Amino acid sequence: MLPLTPIGEEPRLRADAVRNRARLLAAAARLAEEHGIEQLTMDAVANAAAVGKGTVFRRFGDRVGLLQALLDHVEVRFQSGFLQGDPPLGPGAAPRDRLVAFGAEALRHDQAHLELYLAAEGKPERRYLTPSIRVRHTHLTMLLRESGTSGDPELLGHTLLGYLDSALVRHLVAQRGMSLERLESGWVDLVDRVLN
Amino acid sequence: MLPLTPIGEEPRLRADAVRNRARLLAAAARLAEEHGIEQLTMDAVANAAAVGKGTVFRRFGDRVGLLQALLDHVEVRFQSGFLQGDPPLGPGAAPRDRLVAFGAEALRHDQAHLELYLAAEGKPERRYLTPSIRVRHTHLTMLLRESGTSGDPELLGHTLLGYLDSALVRHLVAQRGMSLERLESGWVDLVDRVLN
Repeated sequence: MLPLTPIGEEPRLRADAVRNRARLLAAAARLAEEHGIEQLTMDAVANAAAVGKGTVFRRFGDRVGLLQALLDHVEVRFQSGFLQGDPPLGPGAAPRDRLVAFGAEALRHDQAHLELYLAAEGKPERRYLTPSIRVRHTHLTMLLRESGTSGDPELLGHTLLGYLDSALVRHLVAQRGMSLERLESGWVDLVDRVLN
Repeated sequence: MLPLTPIGEEPRLRADAVRNRARLLAAAARLAEEHGIEQLTMDAVANAAAVGKGTVFRRFGDRVGLLQALLDHVEVRFQSGFLQGDPPLGPGAAPRDRLVAFGAEALRHDQAHLELYLAAEGKPERRYLTPSIRVRHTHLTMLLRESGTSGDPELLGHTLLGYLDSALVRHLVAQRGMSLERLESGWVDLVDRVLN
């Protein structure tokens, strides 16, 4: 529970809250990267950020709320790269170069946050409605249209998207022992087949 | 609980049990097709097969056991088609023709049993280890190798497999309003790009 706030002090509290939230998320992201999502507890975040456990619960509700906030946080960083970053990932390069750069970046990004993406994956009925998937599909389809492909850009967009699916990448790396380099080469090969 | 069986009568009971199980599965498959998986209860199967509810529980354990048995049942029928059926789906046709036939058959088959495949879908960590997915991937990879593709057959096999993913097909048909015909054309187009 938040303490009652005298009227007039709220704006200052809000600014504190925003700063506080950003600091907690940064601590959570660091912990997740160092020890894995499994170890990411409300307690661990409180300790790492040197605040009380109650503060972490007030900001995120529960562990699922924390995971969701963390996903938004890392996803926004990735999206800003392909939506408004420097070429070839961002605008200004040819569609093929942007597609090639997108796959390499997505594979690296998702690999670093794989457990988070899997932990936050919803039911199969909801999968393709999640914002991160929709943004990626829209982006890929846009680049395919721009390339003037002879195929169905929406369906080919799903083919490219499917190659980068978190559960598939995890399977190929962890259960089939493939290297990220092999997946990156496969991506470039797939882009060229799709653009053909 | 099964009643105690006098020694010597067991073989007859087993034969009965096998027949019984097949009859219950046939009834369950009919119910699922007519009313959807949501409505498929142990009670409904018992009524449709004109047996007591206890018999259904003895054969399948619980509703999840029934769904799993039903999936095995429809999957075996589909698998026998592409593993040992007539060409072009079965052996004896060129790899491209078999790939084209596989996609059309899989889209139609999965569409008829979509809710069942989704209801039986496990956690993302297990998805690519489920027998039906492994058999399909092995088959697609084998045909790609046979076609002499210049790419990485294992990865291209996953690209083809991903196009037929139950959750994706459901999304495209139910949430994006695409026709099965459009998905079938997209499949042929994808096969040709992948074989290129």
